[in-house]
Amino acid sequence: MKEDKIIDFLKKKFYYKSIPLGIGDDAAVLSYSENKYLLFTTDTIVDGVHFKVKDINLGYIGRKAINVNISDIAAMGGEPLYAVINFGLPKYDKKLISKIFNGIYYSAKKYNVKIVGGDTVRSKCLFLAVSMIGIVNKKYFTSRSNAKEGDIICITGNIGGAVLSGKHLSFTPRLKEAQWIVKNLMPTSMIDVSDGLFVDLGRLCVLSKKGAVLFKENIPISDKATDFKSALQDGEDFELLFTLKSGTKLPKKVLDTNTKISTIGRIIPDKGIYLEDKGKVSNVKIKGYDHFKQD
Amino acid sequence: MKEDKIIDFLKKKFYYKSIPLGIGDDAAVLSYSENKYLLFTTDTIVDGVHFKVKDINLGYIGRKAINVNISDIAAMGGEPLYAVINFGLPKYDKKLISKIFNGIYYSAKKYNVKIVGGDTVRSKCLFLAVSMIGIVNKKYFTSRSNAKEGDIICITGNIGGAVLSGKHLSFTPRLKEAQWIVKNLMPTSMIDVSDGLFVDLGRLCVLSKKGAVLFKENIPISDKATDFKSALQDGEDFELLFTLKSGTKLPKKVLDTNTKISTIGRIIPDKGIYLEDKGKVSNVKIKGYDHFKQD
Repeated sequence: MKEDKIIDFLKKKFYYKSIPLGIGDDAAVLSYSENKYLLFTTDTIVDGVHFKVKDINLGYIGRKAINVNISDIAAMGGEPLYAVINFGLPKYDKKLISKIFNGIYYSAKKYNVKIVGGDTVRSKCLFLAVSMIGIVNKKYFTSRSNAKEGDIICITGNIGGAVLSGKHLSFTPRLKEAQWIVKNLMPTSMIDVSDGLFVDLGRLCVLSKKGAVLFKENIPISDKATDFKSALQDGEDFELLFTLKSGTKLPKKVLDTNTKISTIGRIIPDKGIYLEDKGKVSNVKIKGYDHFKQD
Repeated sequence: MKEDKIIDFLKKKFYYKSIPLGIGDDAAVLSYSENKYLLFTTDTIVDGVHFKVKDINLGYIGRKAINVNISDIAAMGGEPLYAVINFGLPKYDKKLISKIFNGIYYSAKKYNVKIVGGDTVRSKCLFLAVSMIGIVNKKYFTSRSNAKEGDIICITGNIGGAVLSGKHLSFTPRLKEAQWIVKNLMPTSMIDVSDGLFVDLGRLCVLSKKGAVLFKENIPISDKATDFKSALQDGEDFELLFTLKSGTKLPKKVLDTNTKISTIGRIIPDKGIYLEDKGKVSNVKIKGYDHFKQD
């Protein structure tokens, strides 16, 4: 994937010994206090790529811009606190601006994130880039890179068909779930599924220097997905993918939120991702959403 | 100005009692520790608005994206620490990506800012949005809103003609100067001049609930400026505009950096900006760069 190549290039170029975790996870992890880390993340959504202005309720664009960042902070076990917004738009359109900021307001209020700054610029295409600061208790901090051999792989909710069903816009970031999971299940690693299960599990495995076997019949496919294969490649689910020490007692749901948890696989020492279907194991070719794959 | 209308709208929509300073200054000011505030800012540069890809050395785009944010942190009296980058580009172009990130690397290293995250997305237009975290000692913290009647108005360097001369890309953010100024001159207010002297002085005056008289012959006009009037309206200078208590002993230069300081006016109780030329005072119509003025 070209996008991952860019990330690898930047990870090397901007590597600093002195910071806990830089480029390459859901959020950067920075020194803060004896017991806490500061989290810093950013995500952009662009008209024609992540949504189409003509098709949708503009408020959802605003909500999504905030929620994708909350999802990143959540996936580190953290709590989102503050955000700044870069808003590029082709022309001054009071109604459009107002609707988008109503969506931003809605999600910011719902998840207790304070919008503290921003920048509005003219641009040929409409885009919203949100950067967010959060905080995480060191004992709950969970990265992508600590999955161990034998760990079980779990996922919240259902995957697949997010764009078809509109979930890519209306999804609920798994903030409460993540906070419950880090407090109660002590995951060894966690990532939010934004570019598809295969791609994001691949990232978690590469960073953990491990591989994975997925149990086909356990994977919770959304009834909105076109088929099994596409469900594993579809992006924009924003579910939590996490690993637990083997033997962890797992409830079927995240208590209080009613969100389903499924056990979908196991971490193995071999690099690569395999699919186990009725006792047969096959190698999986990873294909997921890449912004630049056609170039 | 439509841009300032958007900012006013957002200031009201996203007002929080509990944070020291939100939307409307060079950076947001957040609680951090007993002696320090956290600063959080963001700025976007867009192809066709802030630069033209075809015209310039791509490295300067990267430098500029970092330097405009450093300028914002500097204008609060702070020290920049960490940045995340949103990069939108029409297609995967290794050479372009590499050159832009070389520019980012150059400025980040020069000013000791760590690049800790980012997001690369496909977009019809090339844009770079950088968000930056900094820190400021509470005793050096300087906002836009505390200028008092009788304060003298000062500016670093020269103004005008920045786009014609290329200074809009190659400028040096006034970080060292700002740090020297807050430590040695204890300014009552400060702002960086990004949208033109008139507009940014106007912002400082509105937030301080005051007005200003400018002394025409003292204003340091760049020899690259077309004329006096345009120099006061041109943006992209990234000089520091600040106010000092009347009677403050002012050196002609910021010691160590050799950057010139000029005394260009005085804060008055009347709202509005006036120009004093050989004893005659006239009212100034403010006109500056507005992203949406033609809509």
